[in-house]
Amino acid sequence: MNPKSKTTAITGDPSSACSIEATLDVIGDRWSLLVLRSVFRGNHQFSTLQTELGIARNLLSSRLARLVENEVLTKVEYQRRPKRYEYRLTGKGADLSQALIALMNWGDRWYASGKAPTILTHRSCDAALEQVVVCTACGTDVGPTAISSRPGPGRRT
Amino acid sequence: MNPKSKTTAITGDPSSACSIEATLDVIGDRWSLLVLRSVFRGNHQFSTLQTELGIARNLLSSRLARLVENEVLTKVEYQRRPKRYEYRLTGKGADLSQALIALMNWGDRWYASGKAPTILTHRSCDAALEQVVVCTACGTDVGPTAISSRPGPGRRT
Repeated sequence: MNPKSKTTAITGDPSSACSIEATLDVIGDRWSLLVLRSVFRGNHQFSTLQTELGIARNLLSSRLARLVENEVLTKVEYQRRPKRYEYRLTGKGADLSQALIALMNWGDRWYASGKAPTILTHRSCDAALEQVVVCTACGTDVGPTAISSRPGPGRRT
Repeated sequence: MNPKSKTTAITGDPSSACSIEATLDVIGDRWSLLVLRSVFRGNHQFSTLQTELGIARNLLSSRLARLVENEVLTKVEYQRRPKRYEYRLTGKGADLSQALIALMNWGDRWYASGKAPTILTHRSCDAALEQVVVCTACGTDVGPTAISSRPGPGRRT
């Protein structure tokens, strides 16, 4: 272990940090994120999700209901008789891809000895993807120690 | 509500999804992420963290111990008599900035009516930052529906 002590300012001042909290209120438990990961991967049906995740029915039910209630997933009827439903990402749900990619990349770097189990690729190029934080003015790829913050328009006073 | 149904492939096939799971094993609960958010913001001492988060002492203790055990934080003595410690991000911990930024941005977009409470900026330019996923071949900013995946070197067979 060779820890480097670092301080950054990526989450701003105390009065203005509620966006991370708002996010965690919706998806901030392990099962919700694993359910989402599985839906992103193309599993849309209750039974498929249950099998893949090895999760108890009642837990899966409650997580799915909560994700639907929060409009991250939508429940769509795909068969009439008998009625069958599947779970699809809404636009808001699909917009979580950056967060899932970040969590996956971190796991790759620190728990897979740099050997990614999955490489994300650009569908049309087949080349690998990279997640970066860039400056909208100078275009620099900005690392955590070069990040600062200022109050935005939604700051609570 | 106007959900759009979307499918992407960002997390690969079932045998290769363990990096998200590995990450969630370490930071996949709400309190751990909120503790990290607070440390990123510059709060390093137990009492400061406790006050800011309004978390019970035993919960905070257990989350900090787990984050230290997993080498996300390091416990540093900053005063000898009486002994006092503070918690600092390790390199591995600082590397979580992409994940925290993604979670914050999503909260901004969906829970702050697009009015970010905090704007992340490039320290040297003071301009706003943007998190993007780019193709390493063509440089395109790749959205979730244009993402595909293939097995990487760490795929479990």
